[in-house]
Amino acid sequence: MKNESLKNSTIFPLGEKVESDHFIGDAYLQMVFTDEAPLNSAIGNVTFAPKSRNSWHSHKVGQVLLVTGGEGWYQKEGEQAQLLKTGDVVNIPPHVKHWHGATKDSWFVHLAMTPGETEWLEPVDEEWYNQL
Amino acid sequence: MKNESLKNSTIFPLGEKVESDHFIGDAYLQMVFTDEAPLNSAIGNVTFAPKSRNSWHSHKVGQVLLVTGGEGWYQKEGEQAQLLKTGDVVNIPPHVKHWHGATKDSWFVHLAMTPGETEWLEPVDEEWYNQL
Repeated sequence: MKNESLKNSTIFPLGEKVESDHFIGDAYLQMVFTDEAPLNSAIGNVTFAPKSRNSWHSHKVGQVLLVTGGEGWYQKEGEQAQLLKTGDVVNIPPHVKHWHGATKDSWFVHLAMTPGETEWLEPVDEEWYNQL
Repeated sequence: MKNESLKNSTIFPLGEKVESDHFIGDAYLQMVFTDEAPLNSAIGNVTFAPKSRNSWHSHKVGQVLLVTGGEGWYQKEGEQAQLLKTGDVVNIPPHVKHWHGATKDSWFVHLAMTPGETEWLEPVDEEWYNQL
């Protein structure tokens, strides 16, 4: 049933499975815009399968997320995780430690615009995630 | 029937009807991102009802369109109109005269990222549009 929400939200291509130590579970990435101009940022379409998420990390310049499908979590260090739904837009400030990913029961799809570099940190604790 | 495609593509809010001489028909705009940082551009969600389109115009820095629903046209001056569908991404170069809008039969929804100013020109010829 919940997979229907992915089906309905597949606006941009799913892309390839992310092979990275900075992700847990099945996540997929399709770059949808990589030209140098006119933006100061590439645009990636990121799809998280249920339970999938990235590790804690921060962005040197910041990041903008545009949620195009499903439900997921965004958590800044020291704050409660925020539930994100289709249509939500998040401005992640520079140097703020955070993670994002799907909920346990739903796929989660967002466009990510990341003008600068990313610093990867430790994984999100499994027990803690499971209690969300 | 075709209105279903709008229903399915309403990822971001429809916003307000555009009241502008630079648009023909019913178009709607919702700004979804207007913060100064970290992007060099605001992001607007533009929805065109069937037959709706903007006038010929150009962007001083360029524009990126991310099509999130429906079907529409994008035409550069001197070239054939291109049919755009959900998932298409367009990089509109600086100073290129063009227009975009819905097809006669479909709603058309795109995100628009416009880093610089826009110069508005004449409307798209009605007879010409009707022959697309």
